[in-house]
Amino acid sequence: MLRVFLVGKMERTIASFTELVLSDLSKVEKRMGETPPGVDPNLKAAIKQLLSSGGKRLRPTLTLLSGEMLNADPQRIIPLAAAIEMLHTATLVHDDLIDGALLRRGNPTLNAQWSAGATVLTGDFIFARAAHLAAETRSLELMRIFAEKLMVMVNGEITQFFRTSTGNIRKDYFNRINEKTASLFEVATHGASLLSDCEEELRQEMKAIGYEVGMAFQIVDDILDFTGNQEKVGKPVGSDLRQGLLTLPAIRYFEVHPEDPAREIILNGRSQSENELDEVIQRIRDSNAIHESFDEAQDFITSARKRLSQMPPGEKREALFDLADYIVQRPF
Amino acid sequence: MLRVFLVGKMERTIASFTELVLSDLSKVEKRMGETPPGVDPNLKAAIKQLLSSGGKRLRPTLTLLSGEMLNADPQRIIPLAAAIEMLHTATLVHDDLIDGALLRRGNPTLNAQWSAGATVLTGDFIFARAAHLAAETRSLELMRIFAEKLMVMVNGEITQFFRTSTGNIRKDYFNRINEKTASLFEVATHGASLLSDCEEELRQEMKAIGYEVGMAFQIVDDILDFTGNQEKVGKPVGSDLRQGLLTLPAIRYFEVHPEDPAREIILNGRSQSENELDEVIQRIRDSNAIHESFDEAQDFITSARKRLSQMPPGEKREALFDLADYIVQRPF
Repeated sequence: MLRVFLVGKMERTIASFTELVLSDLSKVEKRMGETPPGVDPNLKAAIKQLLSSGGKRLRPTLTLLSGEMLNADPQRIIPLAAAIEMLHTATLVHDDLIDGALLRRGNPTLNAQWSAGATVLTGDFIFARAAHLAAETRSLELMRIFAEKLMVMVNGEITQFFRTSTGNIRKDYFNRINEKTASLFEVATHGASLLSDCEEELRQEMKAIGYEVGMAFQIVDDILDFTGNQEKVGKPVGSDLRQGLLTLPAIRYFEVHPEDPAREIILNGRSQSENELDEVIQRIRDSNAIHESFDEAQDFITSARKRLSQMPPGEKREALFDLADYIVQRPF
Repeated sequence: MLRVFLVGKMERTIASFTELVLSDLSKVEKRMGETPPGVDPNLKAAIKQLLSSGGKRLRPTLTLLSGEMLNADPQRIIPLAAAIEMLHTATLVHDDLIDGALLRRGNPTLNAQWSAGATVLTGDFIFARAAHLAAETRSLELMRIFAEKLMVMVNGEITQFFRTSTGNIRKDYFNRINEKTASLFEVATHGASLLSDCEEELRQEMKAIGYEVGMAFQIVDDILDFTGNQEKVGKPVGSDLRQGLLTLPAIRYFEVHPEDPAREIILNGRSQSENELDEVIQRIRDSNAIHESFDEAQDFITSARKRLSQMPPGEKREALFDLADYIVQRPF
């Protein structure tokens, strides 16, 4: 499913469903790299570096495919796709700073090379640039949603940062991944529908598709934290749990194994020795919780596929089916 | 010119020109304090604290007076005024973090009490909230300008952070204060005009008024850094120059005193001993540069007043004249 393509001036390994929107994706890339005249040369260099370090460009691909399937105006879909990916980039810049992450996608993060101050400001600039690109859609409703979802995303990050809990850890988890991840996927699909003249009912379905794809994406990402190749991911296995962050595999495991000695300690946010953490992570990896979590991601994709089957048929819709399936490529 | 008013639930010492828009200013304050349902309680508390620590609310006052003078729709002017002050607040949160400032307006800054991560995210949330409030104006042009000026402001901060120079320090200075300060004042007056049905020509004049008032405001602020009461301001006299930042009083002084032994060292960004800095700051304070800088601020206000005299007469316009004069209350 992965092939090498040339996006802009960069060679990229991307999924085959991208092929249909490759030329528009190059335009999105170009828009993302644009800086207004008078921009500080340091900032310009930072943005260039951030964009060249790649990424799957899943969100803009989802935006373009959704928009083109619904016959949206390409002049407005391209800035929307660029706005969404820039917003995503800005959150990564700030998140990496906050987490003290030194690598992303195998490249040094901005904060690994720059002072915290310069990194904060670069993130701010990219947020502003995202909003400016969003304004090019010339849709008031879309711009309102864009700002609203940015609030939601940041709130999700804050909830994660403070480990704020309602006492229901499963509910907390789904709420948090909706906020920090699914909400932006929702802007991609719902936003694309707002730029086409389809019915409101279809728009709500597109919104739900974005939500479901986003939820599945984050669940798989959280599974990969347990199953992924430590060297490849660049983080220790179970890094979330090591930082006291409960994700679906751990939540599912403790639901099924209330007798586990680590349960009370972890659920109450108390710390454990490295050794004890290694052991509980191994128990989670060896349990059915991984596959059961994956099934939950798959359920979201099944629902998204069902909604998608109501959309206008054609190669764009087929590519969206492929994109949905790609999200749940088995992470183990 | 200063009197005590009750704004929202807070008692404030504010300028008399505020009196005319006091009731709307309370509404602005209320909108600023609103948080969407589901917001993290830590974030909510942080926003509450930030807003309660006050500030002159000069930008929203300017917005409201401009809008009301031009008969703009109050339903749209109030969210604009709130959006502008929230944007200003967000930049202060990030700037204080970057500068490591521990006090603002005599109160502890957010970063003095919270981790850097929580502070970054709170600033991000307030940016998003500002954009969301701006969307309530339901003006595409205004939202485009709002995003554009946010880029400009952040670029100004970055230029200041990196001490980026074109080699022409006077030009650098005016460019930087335009970007980091005047641009938001411009949104206040120009934005207000966009929400009224006045002529485009008048809108351009309103834009110029915002620019000029903002430039004067920043110049006076930079003069105060030299002349202000050290205890009251909470910073050492000449703190900008101590940090290698050239502002108008220093620029003016070195223009007139090319023979000053500190000139080459400072202009080339080389550091000096504390003692040498104390001495050159004293020489600037004793020179005409302070008054000459003030004259430049006054020139901006004179021009703004001239433009203002073309605007619809009435108590709102009179209050705007007062606001302009208030900006250049002699800082020495």
